[in-house]
Amino acid sequence: MQTVQQRVAILLGSENDLSLVQAAISTLKELDIPHSVRILSAHRLGDEACRFASNARAEGFGVLIAAAGKAAHLAGTLASRTLLPVIGLPLSTSLGGLDALFSTVQMPSGYPVATVAIDGAANAALLAAQILALSDCDLLTRLEERRKAGQEAVREADSRIAKSFM
Amino acid sequence: MQTVQQRVAILLGSENDLSLVQAAISTLKELDIPHSVRILSAHRLGDEACRFASNARAEGFGVLIAAAGKAAHLAGTLASRTLLPVIGLPLSTSLGGLDALFSTVQMPSGYPVATVAIDGAANAALLAAQILALSDCDLLTRLEERRKAGQEAVREADSRIAKSFM
Amino acid sequence: MQTVQQRVAILLGSENDLSLVQAAISTLKELDIPHSVRILSAHRLGDEACRFASNARAEGFGVLIAAAGKAAHLAGTLASRTLLPVIGLPLSTSLGGLDALFSTVQMPSGYPVATVAIDGAANAALLAAQILALSDCDLLTRLEERRKAGQEAVREADSRIAKSFM
Amino acid sequence: MQTVQQRVAILLGSENDLSLVQAAISTLKELDIPHSVRILSAHRLGDEACRFASNARAEGFGVLIAAAGKAAHLAGTLASRTLLPVIGLPLSTSLGGLDALFSTVQMPSGYPVATVAIDGAANAALLAAQILALSDCDLLTRLEERRKAGQEAVREADSRIAKSFM
Amino acid sequence: MQTVQQRVAILLGSENDLSLVQAAISTLKELDIPHSVRILSAHRLGDEACRFASNARAEGFGVLIAAAGKAAHLAGTLASRTLLPVIGLPLSTSLGGLDALFSTVQMPSGYPVATVAIDGAANAALLAAQILALSDCDLLTRLEERRKAGQEAVREADSRIAKSFM
Amino acid sequence: MQTVQQRVAILLGSENDLSLVQAAISTLKELDIPHSVRILSAHRLGDEACRFASNARAEGFGVLIAAAGKAAHLAGTLASRTLLPVIGLPLSTSLGGLDALFSTVQMPSGYPVATVAIDGAANAALLAAQILALSDCDLLTRLEERRKAGQEAVREADSRIAKSFM
Amino acid sequence: MQTVQQRVAILLGSENDLSLVQAAISTLKELDIPHSVRILSAHRLGDEACRFASNARAEGFGVLIAAAGKAAHLAGTLASRTLLPVIGLPLSTSLGGLDALFSTVQMPSGYPVATVAIDGAANAALLAAQILALSDCDLLTRLEERRKAGQEAVREADSRIAKSFM
Amino acid sequence: MQTVQQRVAILLGSENDLSLVQAAISTLKELDIPHSVRILSAHRLGDEACRFASNARAEGFGVLIAAAGKAAHLAGTLASRTLLPVIGLPLSTSLGGLDALFSTVQMPSGYPVATVAIDGAANAALLAAQILALSDCDLLTRLEERRKAGQEAVREADSRIAKSFM
Repeated sequence: MQTVQQRVAILLGSENDLSLVQAAISTLKELDIPHSVRILSAHRLGDEACRFASNARAEGFGVLIAAAGKAAHLAGTLASRTLLPVIGLPLSTSLGGLDALFSTVQMPSGYPVATVAIDGAANAALLAAQILALSDCDLLTRLEERRKAGQEAVREADSRIAKSFM
Repeated sequence: MQTVQQRVAILLGSENDLSLVQAAISTLKELDIPHSVRILSAHRLGDEACRFASNARAEGFGVLIAAAGKAAHLAGTLASRTLLPVIGLPLSTSLGGLDALFSTVQMPSGYPVATVAIDGAANAALLAAQILALSDCDLLTRLEERRKAGQEAVREADSRIAKSFM
Repeated sequence: MQTVQQRVAILLGSENDLSLVQAAISTLKELDIPHSVRILSAHRLGDEACRFASNARAEGFGVLIAAAGKAAHLAGTLASRTLLPVIGLPLSTSLGGLDALFSTVQMPSGYPVATVAIDGAANAALLAAQILALSDCDLLTRLEERRKAGQEAVREADSRIAKSFM
Repeated sequence: MQTVQQRVAILLGSENDLSLVQAAISTLKELDIPHSVRILSAHRLGDEACRFASNARAEGFGVLIAAAGKAAHLAGTLASRTLLPVIGLPLSTSLGGLDALFSTVQMPSGYPVATVAIDGAANAALLAAQILALSDCDLLTRLEERRKAGQEAVREADSRIAKSFM
Repeated sequence: MQTVQQRVAILLGSENDLSLVQAAISTLKELDIPHSVRILSAHRLGDEACRFASNARAEGFGVLIAAAGKAAHLAGTLASRTLLPVIGLPLSTSLGGLDALFSTVQMPSGYPVATVAIDGAANAALLAAQILALSDCDLLTRLEERRKAGQEAVREADSRIAKSFM
Repeated sequence: MQTVQQRVAILLGSENDLSLVQAAISTLKELDIPHSVRILSAHRLGDEACRFASNARAEGFGVLIAAAGKAAHLAGTLASRTLLPVIGLPLSTSLGGLDALFSTVQMPSGYPVATVAIDGAANAALLAAQILALSDCDLLTRLEERRKAGQEAVREADSRIAKSFM
Repeated sequence: MQTVQQRVAILLGSENDLSLVQAAISTLKELDIPHSVRILSAHRLGDEACRFASNARAEGFGVLIAAAGKAAHLAGTLASRTLLPVIGLPLSTSLGGLDALFSTVQMPSGYPVATVAIDGAANAALLAAQILALSDCDLLTRLEERRKAGQEAVREADSRIAKSFM
Repeated sequence: MQTVQQRVAILLGSENDLSLVQAAISTLKELDIPHSVRILSAHRLGDEACRFASNARAEGFGVLIAAAGKAAHLAGTLASRTLLPVIGLPLSTSLGGLDALFSTVQMPSGYPVATVAIDGAANAALLAAQILALSDCDLLTRLEERRKAGQEAVREADSRIAKSFM
């Protein structure tokens, strides 16, 4: 029973890929963005995937994240059934992820997929958050804090390392 | 009004690619294999493409040929909705066709696409013919004659060239 | 003197690339999305580019599109100075665009760039529109109409071609 | 002494590759398709390979599967001596399998090889089965059941995972 | 009627590639090495190609040059039927020649192909000449003269260019 | 408190990459070249990185070395803010380092980055040393000695190996 | 008769590549840096190339620029015979320049080559200038002016373009 | 003290690569071909490498094998100083060996290198043997026996495997 409105859905082609998207899930949690995780292969459950995409806006989702490897069609399939922004996360399960990158990013005119780095799960979640933050000031504040914290950590490392090599 | 039973369907993502599959059409004609040509983009007309694939066997088709460039999802989409053999023909519309090749051939387990060479339109038709010829002796004979004629042409060229360089 | 609030900025590394982003400009026009076009190289005008990104939200922009070739750093540079969604459009000015694709999409954790296809200018604009349409129902309607029109055109082509090859 | 008619032959260039085609063998078994496994290198036993291909139809084979790595010529060699459908299975023994993929799929006009994914052994067997199922209703039924079972497994995983992340 | 013993055979997969090996032919002529040119596709005339290779040593050939594009199997096919040195010349008819290079050079253990650069026709002939010159002092002298002449031409160009930019 | 004038700065995008540049640090030490090590990500600490580059000459630095993986923008960012020579060291953290190599070397006209091999940390330091040695005779002497020692080591290995295989 | 001390040498493997380095020559002229242009192939005139590199420092050169395509060994050959900084300029004469890039940049430890972009002739000259400017204030001033002029041109284009799309 | 005339020299850029050429050494031993093994880096000991190549024919060598990784210049360097056939063996020490393959095979006109597969050490030795066997009937006999034994081993494996899967 779902009481909070989900805003982001993470869709995977296979349960085996779950560990590869863990950073996306934890980033969404950290940013307090309600989300679903679904196993909806473009090929094995194509109809369900299409239906999910068609209904996603009505069900309150704002952004879909599709993670897949090899001939990664999931993001494109979703993108063809919704006008919600679809984020494609190519996975490095073969050829270093080059096949998944090409299959995800090289979409034909009319059906963009917002592609992030190979295995860039955290960035997929952050991109979703940045899109939602366009109309969610609190989320924007959380994103700004997260970014500042990240910068502060680098600054601290810089100062520590710089001294150790002086 | 279709009086002859179509055996092969050639599906294209875009009318622009028609010239790139011309050799497939003419090869099917030459081999006297009844065929359809359809524009059924995986993204633009995904539902129609899925429906076409789902009904293809019932409508008498034996093999589907899907030609597409870039993130070429058409063959995979068809393959996910039918157990007919689906032949993937990657087109060289970007990156020399490497993106289309990867998007077509690197299919996940369970959903094979019989991929031919980049821009290998004639071979896509011939592969379809070889598959149909498993239960069509007349077609097999036509294929054997075509192959022999091709070999004879090379033999003739060899003999002509060999002499000219003696 | 700017009377309408701009929502999307298209940034180019070089005036020479203007023709390569023309489809993005015309798509934004067609969708009636107010936009700016700027020449703001990550290297040649790095400070201006950073300043632009830092102020973009305050100036009312919702999405930034950065188009660049070769070692395409513009999208990443903008993404590091704003939490607005940044769309990266890799241009095929060398190595078939592979260098630009890698330089744009392979961003480190914390700084996503929403990358579209090599030379996929129209898709860059459409992705921007889909993001803005999350909170703009009229724009969503225009996007739906555009998509339907595109589908109708394919349907019409399909029916015309299918007949011609019967 | 062979009492059942073999329908599919799996040919390998080297005994070392046996583990890489195991999924093809088990898939054929699972689908109850009588099959042979042969070590018939295009280079080391070229004559035998050619003879095998020339006689394969007469001996009752319907489809040949050729698995090879590096400069993978086996599928092409077979394809040049028979009009049976030949399935090429590129193996990732060097360069991530890119050399084997190119050597298998980029066949010249007249001699198609139905290429599946790098290391896609199960798909090679399934493609063979789909081809044979064109004239074997029982096999088609088994394929349909296998596909449904696969879909059901994904559905079950989806429902389990979706709940665990609610 | 062949009165001089041929020492080098240039084999092509297709008459269309003749222009791409012209530099090999003219280099052999220039070095006064008797040679044949044959059209003997690995796939279209596989038996003839094998027979040619098997008999080549007995017929007096010392080196075979095989030129082919795409899934270039010709050199490997010849190499599997003779212990004469076989030179592989990959042609750039697709993918910039990368497919032909991989198909030619990545031979399995036991069957080397001496591969030269993509479209490196002159070098294929020179390598053949260098091999034959191991037991042909006159040819070695001609090769030395050719190399010196080439060096002299560069020296002359260097001196001319160096002056013009002083 | 820095008493010796630093001549080379090694900048890293992330503390995680420290082990990958260890050979650069030890080479600078061995050559007695005063140096700093800084963590200054192009994206996370872009302003600091720009400021560092802008002030580097005034602070006495002669060469900057920037090490980064993936969409490696650090070297380019520095190069856009200084006219000091900037050495780019691409790291193999994804795609074998090809993404980092392209992002580092393919700089637009006006902003060169002196790129060394993927993971070529020692060479980055040596290139810096060779540049500084243009006006530092003692350093040149140390470089000459180091090179001679390296050659001597190869000579010794050659003589040892040559004997062992006699 | 050379009256001004040359500071930079541009070395080419072949006179045919002259047009590809024209931008390097004109940039050096523009910056008033005395320079030589030489045709000194690593293979055709290897001894001369080695001798040139060995003597280059004594003859007053500060930086060497080596431009070559394909298996581009010239820069590496020079780098092995001098401790002057050697700039490698890979040319796109085959495989889009990827072969030349790899052959130039992937140098073994001990022998760095400062590699610039494929066909990046102007950048090769600018990198040479930046290196020389470490001890030449006038040259640094000219470089600063050139960079400012370049930035001004972009600023002017930006302002013109921005207006035209308002 | 060398009493037998060496016929083949194996040259390595680095002692570290010794294990990668072990199969070449053992193949030459097995074929009873007298050989030397040398560590002669193109860059570290360029003069010695050049001298070795210049004298190699006079010292009785018939073929040189050069093994190197990365920007593999050794084979090309040797090839530029001798008209003996030079065999290039690219090693996979980075980028899967693609850089070494390109650096070895893409030689300019006039200076061929007979390139074998990445890490194809045994084939390098066999190619050398096939070249020497042009004028050494005993060696040819040994090669024929070796090839037959290899074929017999495959035949035995085939028969064993074929039975086990019946």
